[in-house]
Amino acid sequence: MEYRKIKDEDNDGGTVSNDIENLRGIGFSGVASVSNVPPREQAKWKRKTVVTVALTFLTSSQAILIVWSKRAGKYEYSVTTANFLVETLKCALSLAALARIWKSEGVTEDNRLSTTLDEVIVYPIPALLYLVKNLLQYYIFAYVDAPGYQILKNLNIISTGVLYRIILKKKLSDIQWAAFILLCAGCTTAQLNSRSDHVLQTSLPGWIMAIVMALLSGFAGVYTEAIIKKRPSRNINVQNFWLYIFGMAFNAIAILIQDFDAVMNKGFFHGYSIITTLMILNHALSGIAVSMVMKFADNIVKVYSTSVAMLLTAVVSVLLFGFNLTLAFFLGATVVSVSVYLHSAGKLQR
Amino acid sequence: MEYRKIKDEDNDGGTVSNDIENLRGIGFSGVASVSNVPPREQAKWKRKTVVTVALTFLTSSQAILIVWSKRAGKYEYSVTTANFLVETLKCALSLAALARIWKSEGVTEDNRLSTTLDEVIVYPIPALLYLVKNLLQYYIFAYVDAPGYQILKNLNIISTGVLYRIILKKKLSDIQWAAFILLCAGCTTAQLNSRSDHVLQTSLPGWIMAIVMALLSGFAGVYTEAIIKKRPSRNINVQNFWLYIFGMAFNAIAILIQDFDAVMNKGFFHGYSIITTLMILNHALSGIAVSMVMKFADNIVKVYSTSVAMLLTAVVSVLLFGFNLTLAFFLGATVVSVSVYLHSAGKLQR
Repeated sequence: MEYRKIKDEDNDGGTVSNDIENLRGIGFSGVASVSNVPPREQAKWKRKTVVTVALTFLTSSQAILIVWSKRAGKYEYSVTTANFLVETLKCALSLAALARIWKSEGVTEDNRLSTTLDEVIVYPIPALLYLVKNLLQYYIFAYVDAPGYQILKNLNIISTGVLYRIILKKKLSDIQWAAFILLCAGCTTAQLNSRSDHVLQTSLPGWIMAIVMALLSGFAGVYTEAIIKKRPSRNINVQNFWLYIFGMAFNAIAILIQDFDAVMNKGFFHGYSIITTLMILNHALSGIAVSMVMKFADNIVKVYSTSVAMLLTAVVSVLLFGFNLTLAFFLGATVVSVSVYLHSAGKLQR
Repeated sequence: MEYRKIKDEDNDGGTVSNDIENLRGIGFSGVASVSNVPPREQAKWKRKTVVTVALTFLTSSQAILIVWSKRAGKYEYSVTTANFLVETLKCALSLAALARIWKSEGVTEDNRLSTTLDEVIVYPIPALLYLVKNLLQYYIFAYVDAPGYQILKNLNIISTGVLYRIILKKKLSDIQWAAFILLCAGCTTAQLNSRSDHVLQTSLPGWIMAIVMALLSGFAGVYTEAIIKKRPSRNINVQNFWLYIFGMAFNAIAILIQDFDAVMNKGFFHGYSIITTLMILNHALSGIAVSMVMKFADNIVKVYSTSVAMLLTAVVSVLLFGFNLTLAFFLGATVVSVSVYLHSAGKLQR
């Protein structure tokens, strides 16, 4: 199993769209030019942009670390322990951020760590969904090969859009839906290679599993946004702390289910290297960036961010590893770029 | 050389978009429902739809005839003589249509065959442009292989859009421009195969020739529309007659330049078969359909029509010849479909 499992937890796709969207929103709305936007709106926009750009670059460097580690040889470490450490690190970083806030602002209703059952009861759900999805991942490879699975993972884009609409009841315009379909088609096109056609031979159970996994992943993302947005004034670091505590718990269960013997025999940190450490650090930071995007933007921005990151990764890989870009990549990148534009243009016309 | 040369003359791309566009235009305009549209508008819309659907099906069956004839073996006949016969047949069909009209309506200012120098002087230009383009086609294969040329031909879509804007001064909305870029990317994606990446290695002279040819083809199409639309009340069959007379003349020159010896030694009809005859008939009819689309719709509709025809051809080829559809085809077809939708949606928002 590859490190991809951690990656799936953290992100499946939306950032640059956001900048453009906001820039345009300001320029074309007819209501306001940049100078007329109230300072609070400007601060909001700035924060949204920063977290989205951070997510894009973290996701993109994540993929590059994966390529790098693959070239360095096979993984020897247990993926479940790495996942557990990612959650632990995210928890620790949230606590550190909280400690700073408590020092400067004091403990308030919004930033206190203690919680009510009513608030905390929904926090295990995303972690549970990701656990189920990660366990399913062991079985889908009986039906689909790894490159085929990469292609099918783009179904996450569609499932996120549909669940975003259904669960969060936020509307996308017709143009934005068209843009979302294009995003999925463009990302898939950019990943085409000579063996991609195998995916068309996927059997019905394989398709069903792929769709179920896309729905689980999409639902986990949208549900996380629902939890975080439910209490807008609550400090994001407290919300993250509770999300990640349950993440730690469920990943501990995953260690017990999948890697108990290996950990007992070879030790928890068997096979860890500098690159493993870097990957854990990167996944922790991008996990936090995903939460921030959920708080200050939304799942649609997240999907665009990770899609643009995928393109960035390919371009950087050309420079770093001498990869060749294919014609399919250029066509997919064109379609994704038009999709980003349409997402912002579609918003204006509502 | 392949029969493609004739194909290039007749069409490079627009129909279904038109239906949708019109249906939507009627349904959503807020001004009128179908029942409120004046009968004259309804008749116009009907005519536009009929010629566009005809062009789509003729183009699609054209490509199927080409596949069929390829499976039947190599071409033995001279392509220039076939091109000449296509022009001659178009001329004859236009005269036959005119004869019927003269019988029913009598000879009027608009349907008389005689013309002025002022009217006729521009008619040789499209035929001349196509001649230059067809002659260039012999040289581009020194730089690009045939599958690569098929890919590069999609540049026609962009050149037609740009020249349509510049020469006819008709505006496309931003969404429609985005749709046009998608149409080009989608058509190219649908045609991807394992050898497509070679096209990225095309040298600079190859690219320049491909772009010049795309511009020639786009200019010829847009200029034909300009000529035909300049005199809206002039009967289309008269306009076609004069277009095709010069088409015959320039194709006669092409015979002299390229195939004089072969025609002299082997005869004009050497290598003709039933399928050659069918192809000539098909090309003549689709040539007339292109003129009709120029008269009653425009070059954008033509481009969409031929693009949709390309997708139809692939689907029909699966049924007729047992071809397999690739994942790239499905992705490209999705992008083209979204493009058709956006072209119509983009129109409404102006």
